[in-house]
Amino acid sequence: MINLGVIGVGYWGPNIIRNAVLNKRFKMSCCADSKPERLDYISALYPTIKTSPNYKEIIDDSSIDAVAICTPVFTHFEIASAVLQAGKHILIEKPMTGTSAEAQQLLELAEKNKLKILVDHTFLFTGAVRKIKETIKSGEIGDIYYFDSVRVNLGLFQHDVNVVWDLAPHDIAVMDHLIDRKAESIVATGSDHLGNGLEDVAFVTVFYPDNIIAHIHVNWLSPVKIRQTQISGTKKMIVWDDNSPSEKVKIYDKGIEVIQTADQVYNTLVQYRTGDMYCPKIPQSEALAVEMDHFADCIEKNITPISDGYSGWRVVQILESSEKSIKHRGREIRL
Amino acid sequence: MINLGVIGVGYWGPNIIRNAVLNKRFKMSCCADSKPERLDYISALYPTIKTSPNYKEIIDDSSIDAVAICTPVFTHFEIASAVLQAGKHILIEKPMTGTSAEAQQLLELAEKNKLKILVDHTFLFTGAVRKIKETIKSGEIGDIYYFDSVRVNLGLFQHDVNVVWDLAPHDIAVMDHLIDRKAESIVATGSDHLGNGLEDVAFVTVFYPDNIIAHIHVNWLSPVKIRQTQISGTKKMIVWDDNSPSEKVKIYDKGIEVIQTADQVYNTLVQYRTGDMYCPKIPQSEALAVEMDHFADCIEKNITPISDGYSGWRVVQILESSEKSIKHRGREIRL
Amino acid sequence: MINLGVIGVGYWGPNIIRNAVLNKRFKMSCCADSKPERLDYISALYPTIKTSPNYKEIIDDSSIDAVAICTPVFTHFEIASAVLQAGKHILIEKPMTGTSAEAQQLLELAEKNKLKILVDHTFLFTGAVRKIKETIKSGEIGDIYYFDSVRVNLGLFQHDVNVVWDLAPHDIAVMDHLIDRKAESIVATGSDHLGNGLEDVAFVTVFYPDNIIAHIHVNWLSPVKIRQTQISGTKKMIVWDDNSPSEKVKIYDKGIEVIQTADQVYNTLVQYRTGDMYCPKIPQSEALAVEMDHFADCIEKNITPISDGYSGWRVVQILESSEKSIKHRGREIRL
Amino acid sequence: MINLGVIGVGYWGPNIIRNAVLNKRFKMSCCADSKPERLDYISALYPTIKTSPNYKEIIDDSSIDAVAICTPVFTHFEIASAVLQAGKHILIEKPMTGTSAEAQQLLELAEKNKLKILVDHTFLFTGAVRKIKETIKSGEIGDIYYFDSVRVNLGLFQHDVNVVWDLAPHDIAVMDHLIDRKAESIVATGSDHLGNGLEDVAFVTVFYPDNIIAHIHVNWLSPVKIRQTQISGTKKMIVWDDNSPSEKVKIYDKGIEVIQTADQVYNTLVQYRTGDMYCPKIPQSEALAVEMDHFADCIEKNITPISDGYSGWRVVQILESSEKSIKHRGREIRL
Repeated sequence: MINLGVIGVGYWGPNIIRNAVLNKRFKMSCCADSKPERLDYISALYPTIKTSPNYKEIIDDSSIDAVAICTPVFTHFEIASAVLQAGKHILIEKPMTGTSAEAQQLLELAEKNKLKILVDHTFLFTGAVRKIKETIKSGEIGDIYYFDSVRVNLGLFQHDVNVVWDLAPHDIAVMDHLIDRKAESIVATGSDHLGNGLEDVAFVTVFYPDNIIAHIHVNWLSPVKIRQTQISGTKKMIVWDDNSPSEKVKIYDKGIEVIQTADQVYNTLVQYRTGDMYCPKIPQSEALAVEMDHFADCIEKNITPISDGYSGWRVVQILESSEKSIKHRGREIRL
Repeated sequence: MINLGVIGVGYWGPNIIRNAVLNKRFKMSCCADSKPERLDYISALYPTIKTSPNYKEIIDDSSIDAVAICTPVFTHFEIASAVLQAGKHILIEKPMTGTSAEAQQLLELAEKNKLKILVDHTFLFTGAVRKIKETIKSGEIGDIYYFDSVRVNLGLFQHDVNVVWDLAPHDIAVMDHLIDRKAESIVATGSDHLGNGLEDVAFVTVFYPDNIIAHIHVNWLSPVKIRQTQISGTKKMIVWDDNSPSEKVKIYDKGIEVIQTADQVYNTLVQYRTGDMYCPKIPQSEALAVEMDHFADCIEKNITPISDGYSGWRVVQILESSEKSIKHRGREIRL
Repeated sequence: MINLGVIGVGYWGPNIIRNAVLNKRFKMSCCADSKPERLDYISALYPTIKTSPNYKEIIDDSSIDAVAICTPVFTHFEIASAVLQAGKHILIEKPMTGTSAEAQQLLELAEKNKLKILVDHTFLFTGAVRKIKETIKSGEIGDIYYFDSVRVNLGLFQHDVNVVWDLAPHDIAVMDHLIDRKAESIVATGSDHLGNGLEDVAFVTVFYPDNIIAHIHVNWLSPVKIRQTQISGTKKMIVWDDNSPSEKVKIYDKGIEVIQTADQVYNTLVQYRTGDMYCPKIPQSEALAVEMDHFADCIEKNITPISDGYSGWRVVQILESSEKSIKHRGREIRL
Repeated sequence: MINLGVIGVGYWGPNIIRNAVLNKRFKMSCCADSKPERLDYISALYPTIKTSPNYKEIIDDSSIDAVAICTPVFTHFEIASAVLQAGKHILIEKPMTGTSAEAQQLLELAEKNKLKILVDHTFLFTGAVRKIKETIKSGEIGDIYYFDSVRVNLGLFQHDVNVVWDLAPHDIAVMDHLIDRKAESIVATGSDHLGNGLEDVAFVTVFYPDNIIAHIHVNWLSPVKIRQTQISGTKKMIVWDDNSPSEKVKIYDKGIEVIQTADQVYNTLVQYRTGDMYCPKIPQSEALAVEMDHFADCIEKNITPISDGYSGWRVVQILESSEKSIKHRGREIRL
């Protein structure tokens, strides 16, 4: 049984606690938050969980095996460093850190101390993404042509980060997981309509090896809520509409075939193929429950997390580079 | 009555002819094409229209007032120059020319000779775009925040131009018409998956004055056909789904309000407003019929066409710059 | 403050309790259920609420002003009679009773004792139905032509009632509320595919005065979940899609105009009118919270509930007649 | 080569002619219509087709093998009788006749003279219905539970028949083809809002053997256009949305399993099964072209048409019975 502490019980922390309480592999031991009313909230729901206003108590508690860090991003590095130095595994909210340098230090620290970092890229544990990953891995869609993701809605404007840091970590984590390669460079554009230097609309292109191109559109100013991702391959093509209650993932038996001809003028002939479409059944389990179980597996069986520190670091690197590219009006940032 | 000649009767020319025949303000006089079978096709349908294998016959015919040019793009400049020099108005298929320098020469030639150029940006004459333009002009949506357009489907791959030159002229013409400003710079990315140097997926950001950002996604590799455009403003927001048979244009009474507070930390407070949505009734008339009527108006009443040579030139400039930006991995191209 | 008791804390009772606890006009005093584990569940959540295995304790408690009855339908009459005889107001789950005779006795008892019966037709308190009712009342849609409702999905098969008794109370209550007339007769058909005498697919036509026709399709065997209601009027037409997250109610400015001509052969000429469509903003408040507030209003201000005993009785009468009509293969049952 | 004559060239006749002209198995020989302008229209399009104001010329022309009858329904019986008596095959627009007695006489006449009757139930020849028929035939959906079809829109009001005779022939023909049994009885309801005795809204239940129930909703007063059919079976379930451009037919791997238990109280236990959904690729060929080819096959190879006189007769019988049932407020009409 893994003895778990939770640092930060604002919005996301209570979800971690609820799942830890329900999961027999965890003992939900204690939590910390600087706001007393949040601790009272947890105490009322779970009288047996110890609470503390100071996260250092959790770090100093030698009975704690693992810590979930659910505090604001700018505090991640300091807290995570202390937790890792205390020899505890971490589950850390996304994005992992505010800079890629920090992310790199954390993962080196974890490696040195033989500890696990699981970055809470919750989407990787949804039924939809697991099904898509499985489909890609099986070879069913062939080689990937492109990845395109749209995540737009009205608000919520953040006051300290732009829309890329706020919304794109989801898309970048999924992209990184599905494309399974190291991105080469970033070109991003965006616009800030409030005049506070924080873009509310942004477009990020990511170039990958093997001629794969990826694009992410994130936006706080859209009248409609769209969460749609396409992955097009040489054999089949996938559309994932996360808003659809019953047809989240569609797999199209569509593609092109390129025929090289002797013809001088038209040297490539493209033929189109269209077959059936199917919607695979998607498991309904809560993503965070699956993720917590995976965290327990990683610790107990010494497995590398699906969303390990490297994945967290790659995501932060792309966020950082996107921001830099936007500030320089689309300058290509090589990674 | 305007005596009309048509040069090029491949795919689009016959539509011009059909509309000219039905429009009492035109006399559909003659057409030319280098392919005899196309001329035979027209003769069978319209026995009274003169046909010629040589477009110069139309140019030399002093009874012809105006000429529609529906030939491949690379021939536009030569033919249009000759037509304008012969003192005839032109209706020219989009894109206007293969280079912006050519477009500029044509519009100067037209100005000098006091002739009209109407570039066949057909979408500007659809009920949907006319309704959106009217809505923007009335002030109903306030100032524009962004314009975002997605035009994707599977194929048809072109063998001589990339997906931007093939599909984006529609979006660029609409964007130019609705934003009604001179674009400042372009950042574009894309990818060519056939290895022939012609991108099949592309993402184009266009920066406009007044902090307006525009983005166009064009794609020949998408399993699903999407034609969706958003225009978000300070007061209302518009979504135009050209695939929807009955709800093409939706106008959302949604927006944000920014409140400047004295607070040092959170210096802007954003509030969200959500009201009714409505779908205005869209006139069903054929866009090309409206366009032909407008062409007649321009000639007879000496009006500047909605899609005049300047509009055609701006569109070509953006196409050209997009291609250049793509080739340089997102380098910003200033206009 | 209304002192409330709840009898039955299976599925729906806890929702009543949660809303009573949150509503300052109620004091959530005690609850009863014959199953000890349900009482334990409530005690764990709300330690201050008294629990009892015997509902008679609630009836005998003279401090209780009103009782919510959330037990199986076959127990409604006995419990409700006792509660009313004890001089307490009731909020009773739908359908009100298992027979219309019982419903009638209850409402007579309530009238005699000057007590309120609010039948828990929750849909009447949703934002969508309140908006539709308001639209009809304002005269905006003109006179009603027809009401058509489809409520279909896969399962859940009930073991004691057919699909009409299970699903149609919602539609019938809404229909009764919107049409606001006394139904004249019923014709219903259905089919039982399990061979247990309980129909799983049913179609109910209800004839109303003023030439209004209503139809309800309920079904436990549909692969897709549909909740769609249309109300068509002489001036406008409404479509309510309860599955749509953002466009639940659409109001179409569509209609027909009938012109009587002198012509002998075609003596009526029908013209069609099509204008804008709009989606009114729908309030998001929880229907049950609105309903509880209304219950408090009815008691405190002596108002007749929107879903009073008469409405509950009319719904039961239509359910009863539908079942009878189905058993006789569509025989018209006059009310 | 089949020498074809066409009687009636109003709306549908020209489509028959166009398809006959394009089909090498037919010689499109002559057509007749009482309106000279319709004959002129055909002559202009197809100068080689003989035209006549009197259909008897076609009947008397011994070189004609087959005749397509595209005149108003009330003339079908007289014309079809004469054509069959003249020894010619017929393709006849739907509904076959105005009464079932007439339909029966025609099919007997055809049998006696060894001639083919193909009733123009065009939907049977669409890719969607052919795919659904094939799926049912293969056993993939198991035994049919129910068939439900909705065909509603605003207008066009007919001045001589009600909405059942106008719209339902499509649904009834498809239902008859897919269920492939003789209907047992009809219960129908409807309402006439113009006061001319012609219902504009109608609901038709058809009882079939093997506990199959079918229902059709046809409506001229709906603000939205719906064409949706469900066929639910013991193994799988089909939804056909004819308005959907790209996902017309969806096949759901969903169903219920009934477990008989020893339990006294709950004597049936129902379990639900949900698997993948798929959209089979639907052939795009024009239904009428497929139908004309089938007509040629039937004549040349002495095959019974898919939509033969019996099918036409069954459809008319159901139309007739529906009308009768509506007039008697849902009285069950046994066939």
